[in-house]
Amino acid sequence: MALDCTYRLRTPHRPGKLAQVATCISVNGARIGDVTTIAIARHEIIREITLELNDQQHAEQVARELESLDGVHVLWYHDRALIAHDGGKIRTVPLRPVKSLQDVRDVYTPGVARVCDAVREDPDRARALTLIGRSVAICTNGTRVLGLGDIGPVAAMPVMEGKALFYAQFVGVTATPILIDTKDTDEFVDTVVRIAPSFGGIHLEDIAAPACFEIERRLIEQLDKPVMHDDVHGTAVVSLAAVINAVRQAGLDFDNVSVGQIGLGAAGFGIASLIHQAGVERVIATDPNPSACQQAADNGIEIGTLEDVMREADVVVATSGRADLLDPSLVRKGQVILALTNPKPEIDPEVALAAGAAFAADGTSVNNVLGYPGIFRGALAARAAEINLAMKRAAAWKLADLTEESELVPDVLDPAVHLAVAGAVRQAAVDSGVARLDLDEPKFPI
Amino acid sequence: MALDCTYRLRTPHRPGKLAQVATCISVNGARIGDVTTIAIARHEIIREITLELNDQQHAEQVARELESLDGVHVLWYHDRALIAHDGGKIRTVPLRPVKSLQDVRDVYTPGVARVCDAVREDPDRARALTLIGRSVAICTNGTRVLGLGDIGPVAAMPVMEGKALFYAQFVGVTATPILIDTKDTDEFVDTVVRIAPSFGGIHLEDIAAPACFEIERRLIEQLDKPVMHDDVHGTAVVSLAAVINAVRQAGLDFDNVSVGQIGLGAAGFGIASLIHQAGVERVIATDPNPSACQQAADNGIEIGTLEDVMREADVVVATSGRADLLDPSLVRKGQVILALTNPKPEIDPEVALAAGAAFAADGTSVNNVLGYPGIFRGALAARAAEINLAMKRAAAWKLADLTEESELVPDVLDPAVHLAVAGAVRQAAVDSGVARLDLDEPKFPI
Repeated sequence: MALDCTYRLRTPHRPGKLAQVATCISVNGARIGDVTTIAIARHEIIREITLELNDQQHAEQVARELESLDGVHVLWYHDRALIAHDGGKIRTVPLRPVKSLQDVRDVYTPGVARVCDAVREDPDRARALTLIGRSVAICTNGTRVLGLGDIGPVAAMPVMEGKALFYAQFVGVTATPILIDTKDTDEFVDTVVRIAPSFGGIHLEDIAAPACFEIERRLIEQLDKPVMHDDVHGTAVVSLAAVINAVRQAGLDFDNVSVGQIGLGAAGFGIASLIHQAGVERVIATDPNPSACQQAADNGIEIGTLEDVMREADVVVATSGRADLLDPSLVRKGQVILALTNPKPEIDPEVALAAGAAFAADGTSVNNVLGYPGIFRGALAARAAEINLAMKRAAAWKLADLTEESELVPDVLDPAVHLAVAGAVRQAAVDSGVARLDLDEPKFPI
Repeated sequence: MALDCTYRLRTPHRPGKLAQVATCISVNGARIGDVTTIAIARHEIIREITLELNDQQHAEQVARELESLDGVHVLWYHDRALIAHDGGKIRTVPLRPVKSLQDVRDVYTPGVARVCDAVREDPDRARALTLIGRSVAICTNGTRVLGLGDIGPVAAMPVMEGKALFYAQFVGVTATPILIDTKDTDEFVDTVVRIAPSFGGIHLEDIAAPACFEIERRLIEQLDKPVMHDDVHGTAVVSLAAVINAVRQAGLDFDNVSVGQIGLGAAGFGIASLIHQAGVERVIATDPNPSACQQAADNGIEIGTLEDVMREADVVVATSGRADLLDPSLVRKGQVILALTNPKPEIDPEVALAAGAAFAADGTSVNNVLGYPGIFRGALAARAAEINLAMKRAAAWKLADLTEESELVPDVLDPAVHLAVAGAVRQAAVDSGVARLDLDEPKFPI
């Protein structure tokens, strides 16, 4: 897979040396990013240079060629992602550090006993007196991680920690990765139910279909707190926002379009269901797996062949996992096409446009990190025991409304976006009658 | 129970008013702590005044009397501990916030996939590339919390969060409270084993005896990471440090003393066992529960009556949970007495000294927060799969050596103390052959 590497180089500190290094890099077909000076001595300089490379072999070749230059030493070179993961990505800190023995007496014995007593008398007070009300567990067994498949719980940790980082940075929710070492649905559900008192919400992540559907259904039944499989619903919310904007940009009317869904895995099923529930009467889908089709049909979604979908749908969303699945001859004039499979889409947007599509985009423009932070923050703020359709719709329309013209979704790094989504979700919980405003309010640190 | 309350008062802003308030407080038998000015208007001033009170009724009485003063209004009054718990005590933050889309690509897709791949190929790399290597789960079912007993998992959260706060502040370990909703030993063990991949160590907390012993034993057997019940071993380490210092101050020789242990609950059994294993040949203990006595006897501890213990032991440690259990007539001349039951000890230190003790102290001088942070940090730093006797001994002797003369244990708020304990524990792991220095080293943020 493509690779961004940073190289640390020691070279003579004299004119022309960096030019020589840059030339060597370009001759070897790599692109140069940041160049940073690390240290300067009288005759030498140490720099870090980031390169875009094709793969590990390419990285090794460039290192060898650089080493062969007169006076140039490659001290090390590392994958940028590995550097960015050095030591992990999140940590716990005190909300208020203890500074005196009186502080220790307040937050620990003897003062803490009075707080325990208060919670024992009224368990709802835990929402405001502990971190529970502003926390979620990110639970996975690592059976369906990114495009990597079943890599197990520990290898899934970097993804879970990334999700937790965004929760912390964007919405002040304290999220804990919980790696669950079982592929058994009963064991998974039992484990989450037993540890659920520790958390305000349960975020399910990267669990393979179809087990993920049953796990989510049973946890929703058994727990009186928000439970959501992000790969299904978070992705669906962001995709719905993208569809809304794509439909707008193509000059169509959302309420009267027909939508086609190619691929009915966790994400595809979530997208098709949400779009249907959100008001699109005709959603037609296709998938090679008959039981995935049956599940979709049970939810009011029409089933057809790939050709049926491409012929009937005004808007096509593809999450098939299969690069170049869509032949340009299948594209209908004026169609909107979102080919979301990463890293290579079902059809290149340029190709789709050339074939007559009114609008086309791939997965790089639909970042699913835009969904879950605001959705869970809003649900926790509302003290809601569920994440209902009204809340998901509100998140999608808010995302659509916050999008710059010519974009499909808003800027993921804009903190105001996530807090605005949270506000919309909270209000939708209130309006749909699932908010519990009689309970103590959790206090978010941002 | 005794109570520290902060009162927010609005009073006329003129000379003599604070004196009137202070007089009213003193007449009503409360003691004044901090006085803080919150706001000043032309004719009025708002202040917060902290008072030491006997109980809730006393707090209400003082509020009523203050309200009856001319122009004085009690805007609110709150338990300080509840104020210190407002919004909870810990939060998660990014180690390095994401600032650019390149950052997002490094910590999340697509870069994160390369990190997942690296961990899948070599799971040990998770120690340095994720938070796992520097994290612990604080697991409880809330069956034996402080002096409160079985208050269940949610009401136990404030204690767990306090422990996590100290981990974060003192040693940079990311600790997650895990409240486990079961009293069944099998279910508890199964749950912890299934979520254990998420964490570098398992800290057991506030689980009732005798279940706690079996839970700890089985988890140690099943997991290749450090597992420790803090109420047993953490408390024992700190108590051993206190005994070492008390013996020094009384002019005795640690290797030749006989030690008596009164009470064989989780803490008492831990203390008696550790002191015996640490080299004190004769440890004699007493407890009304025959099975607790049997367990101690199986571990080389002599069993006797309360009178036997008081007659035979040079050093007596009491963790019986029973205030005023020890009649002064039982005290032997020259004896060292640590009466650790909180909030009221088995014998008042003054009374014990008057009865002839060479040294006496109560639980306020032995803070168990001194143990676990350094012990777990040291074990994690050593990548040890266990916390062995050598590591616990090293922690206790380091604590003893760091203690100021005339004190029993060091200052809990001195961060250098916790890191020094961690260093001693890590070295003991190396010296006793359980460190895994061939594995990637976790990186602690402090």
